Amino acid sequence: MPGSSQVDLNADLGEGFGAWGGGADESLLAVVTSANVACGFHAGDPVIMRRVCAAAAGRGVTIGAQVGYRDLVGFGRRRIDIAPDDLTADVLYQLGALDGFARAAGDRVRYLKPHGALYSAAATDPGQAGAIVAALLAWDRPLPVLTLPGSALATAAAAAGIVVVAEAFCDRGYLPGGALVPRDQPGAVLHDAGQIAARALTMVTDGELRAVDGSVIAVRPGSLCVHGDTPGAVEITTAVRDRLAAAGVRLAAFAT
Amino acid sequence: MPGSSQVDLNADLGEGFGAWGGGADESLLAVVTSANVACGFHAGDPVIMRRVCAAAAGRGVTIGAQVGYRDLVGFGRRRIDIAPDDLTADVLYQLGALDGFARAAGDRVRYLKPHGALYSAAATDPGQAGAIVAALLAWDRPLPVLTLPGSALATAAAAAGIVVVAEAFCDRGYLPGGALVPRDQPGAVLHDAGQIAARALTMVTDGELRAVDGSVIAVRPGSLCVHGDTPGAVEITTAVRDRLAAAGVRLAAFAT
Amino acid sequence: MPGSSQVDLNADLGEGFGAWGGGADESLLAVVTSANVACGFHAGDPVIMRRVCAAAAGRGVTIGAQVGYRDLVGFGRRRIDIAPDDLTADVLYQLGALDGFARAAGDRVRYLKPHGALYSAAATDPGQAGAIVAALLAWDRPLPVLTLPGSALATAAAAAGIVVVAEAFCDRGYLPGGALVPRDQPGAVLHDAGQIAARALTMVTDGELRAVDGSVIAVRPGSLCVHGDTPGAVEITTAVRDRLAAAGVRLAAFAT
Amino acid sequence: MPGSSQVDLNADLGEGFGAWGGGADESLLAVVTSANVACGFHAGDPVIMRRVCAAAAGRGVTIGAQVGYRDLVGFGRRRIDIAPDDLTADVLYQLGALDGFARAAGDRVRYLKPHGALYSAAATDPGQAGAIVAALLAWDRPLPVLTLPGSALATAAAAAGIVVVAEAFCDRGYLPGGALVPRDQPGAVLHDAGQIAARALTMVTDGELRAVDGSVIAVRPGSLCVHGDTPGAVEITTAVRDRLAAAGVRLAAFAT
Repeated sequence: MPGSSQVDLNADLGEGFGAWGGGADESLLAVVTSANVACGFHAGDPVIMRRVCAAAAGRGVTIGAQVGYRDLVGFGRRRIDIAPDDLTADVLYQLGALDGFARAAGDRVRYLKPHGALYSAAATDPGQAGAIVAALLAWDRPLPVLTLPGSALATAAAAAGIVVVAEAFCDRGYLPGGALVPRDQPGAVLHDAGQIAARALTMVTDGELRAVDGSVIAVRPGSLCVHGDTPGAVEITTAVRDRLAAAGVRLAAFAT
Repeated sequence: MPGSSQVDLNADLGEGFGAWGGGADESLLAVVTSANVACGFHAGDPVIMRRVCAAAAGRGVTIGAQVGYRDLVGFGRRRIDIAPDDLTADVLYQLGALDGFARAAGDRVRYLKPHGALYSAAATDPGQAGAIVAALLAWDRPLPVLTLPGSALATAAAAAGIVVVAEAFCDRGYLPGGALVPRDQPGAVLHDAGQIAARALTMVTDGELRAVDGSVIAVRPGSLCVHGDTPGAVEITTAVRDRLAAAGVRLAAFAT
Repeated sequence: MPGSSQVDLNADLGEGFGAWGGGADESLLAVVTSANVACGFHAGDPVIMRRVCAAAAGRGVTIGAQVGYRDLVGFGRRRIDIAPDDLTADVLYQLGALDGFARAAGDRVRYLKPHGALYSAAATDPGQAGAIVAALLAWDRPLPVLTLPGSALATAAAAAGIVVVAEAFCDRGYLPGGALVPRDQPGAVLHDAGQIAARALTMVTDGELRAVDGSVIAVRPGSLCVHGDTPGAVEITTAVRDRLAAAGVRLAAFAT
Repeated sequence: MPGSSQVDLNADLGEGFGAWGGGADESLLAVVTSANVACGFHAGDPVIMRRVCAAAAGRGVTIGAQVGYRDLVGFGRRRIDIAPDDLTADVLYQLGALDGFARAAGDRVRYLKPHGALYSAAATDPGQAGAIVAALLAWDRPLPVLTLPGSALATAAAAAGIVVVAEAFCDRGYLPGGALVPRDQPGAVLHDAGQIAARALTMVTDGELRAVDGSVIAVRPGSLCVHGDTPGAVEITTAVRDRLAAAGVRLAAFAT
């Protein structure tokens, strides 16, 4: 019985900047259990961060720090060859800034998830992964990290005694080895809400997902990621949530 | 007996950015009791902030958040007509980011001081002053504010129950009313270490200072500010410190 | 016969940044005769600027530099107390950057229009207005400036021998004196395409517009401004264009 | 007779930002023949760029665009995995901005040199090199590129019909293959003015330089680079200039 009767649902939030809006923050907060809040380096600004933290705290959605490379114009999607020590400082800065807003809302930042190119770099590069781990160890309270199972970050974090929560992507295609299909290849992103919801349920209850070549990958996701910035994000997330609930899966944050 | 036998000595620290160095951080930390650490908006970057917080904590120097307008190229010296609510968020962001580094160093941010144009704006504009007060009220622990006595910020903070610490500037000329001589006027900045040290002692033990027109202004400074970015800053600060110590004035941080 | 049988139609374009889109650039380029292209300080990035310049040049739409304060997070809508000499340099920087893209597209920047808070500041503050004029005089070819008639910028530019093109806002309410109704007051922004189009025609052919109090203001707009970032911007602009064309008014750029 | 009786002397200039000064711009302008002026992405701001362009034009020093990655906090020293098309736009933006100041000073930008991590990336990565070449081809007048002989950029530029000027570094150690000794290895940077000047002369008149292992590398530098931000930069550059002049080598810009 590989499946689970409980799972977390996470989405990226607060990814606007100034006059430029992000996704449907308010609507997503009504359906997810964990909010990966942008911290100002790849997206997000203090006004947005404050508003999202207050709204998340008000709804009981768990606040996580979505930390990224300092690259607003590139939305954090471009790898920057930053020295690990400098990256550790950048992560602490973002974590501290968001935690201030969380505390102002009567809450705390309860987990960390890297964003975009940092997510990818930390999945394969031990130096970048180690820099994130160093930031978590320097932080004054233990925080779990949300990342790809089997990634360099998962390995380094576990070795350092940090709780690792594995996430799976409901709306992304997978290669046979468990990596995501790159965005410029066919099958990278799924769009059909029903298909995505069915896939989410299989991941959680059967502990498996089907790769693009039809092979089966074993997964035990502690959290399912839905993308907040795609068209129909709210509808898709709601479909996932309803399908899981109908099957008796309890939706609950992994970090409390 | 207007004088005092104890005073704090504060200076701006961590005001470099990336490859561009700031003042003599390490040397100043050896002589001041409170460090106004730049938080990344007018100066300072995560690497510098982390290093200064660790060094300050290691030496027992009190860490304060020196918050400014978001204006790196202008070094926070240009007034920005930011809406008060937005400014409150900007202040909280900077405060949180610095506090993360302070906590990573086993310490906390223990006071707030506005920088540059924000210092000036908050001295006269109730809207900008109120925005800073709102940030301090939203913060999850009480923090004193270091500012000009009689300023709009001092008034608003006191009305909100926030501890206000009055500062005096050893190396700046004063107008008869208690305002600083603008930097583009004669007598704005003093350069002679001996004169500055003598002035500091008079402020603390006699509770007065002499304005540019020769008139006497009553002061009760809780903290003396020395400028860390002027040539000879360390020598001047050391002279002030030695002169005060020789007169039996105890140098101690106001916030602990 | 105060009216005119020809007018220019201008809109702000290229006001996205990185992953954050701006208005409907492509659609607007099909209806306007002049494009105020953001230059990277308040909005716009090199990729967007290059694309908009190429598209404008391809369609025969005149390229103008929409210069602003360096304030991405505030979208250039907040006054910054920048020294006039520094502002002159900032304006030249933006002008040069955009002109490079215009030349790469076989064209040139053909006019300048300030954006947001700089537009407002230059309308009333001779220092800020003079800084823009100084940039235009330092530029190596004469460029007209598009601005509010009667503004400080119009006065200073005319005195310096710079061609001033008066603009009127089809979709904004006016105070009796000719200033715009502030955005936080009722009647500031009009939304009905038919009403806006009728207003545009009256401005051009009758040389007048009706203020919020019903009084009549004489205008001789060389250009009509339509806002590209409001919902229905393309529909409104198309309505204005069609109404003018139907009345025999020729739509043509003022600068060629 | 492999040597030459003429060479250019180039240095990076205008690498401050706002209140943070760069190197000794004025002093260096008195000794170099070509100025690689920072364009605001890794360093430099409009005020500095305007001042350096005016000073360079006034002294007859040739103005070149020193373009870099958009990374102020990293001083452009960190590789960013930017898409080639986006990099082309970033290069054009910087080139245009600087050219505006050059034209305002009665001059033009006369060559391009990549900075820091972009210099390194363009030396080995055909994608990044090609993006720079694409920017030069899109520019409306032919500009030579100053780069490492044998680099990917030199190859791509030559293939596109762009003039390539080879540079050699007087004050840097070389590996046997002609690459520079990385900065974190011994022998990376030379500090003795006499040794550097002698090395410069050998490069120009003998067409060779000695690598760290003692082997001889053939060089034909069109320009010698001296670093403006090292202590003693002006003294070293003056020593190089005097030694070359004493040996009858004419110092002259390669681009006019």
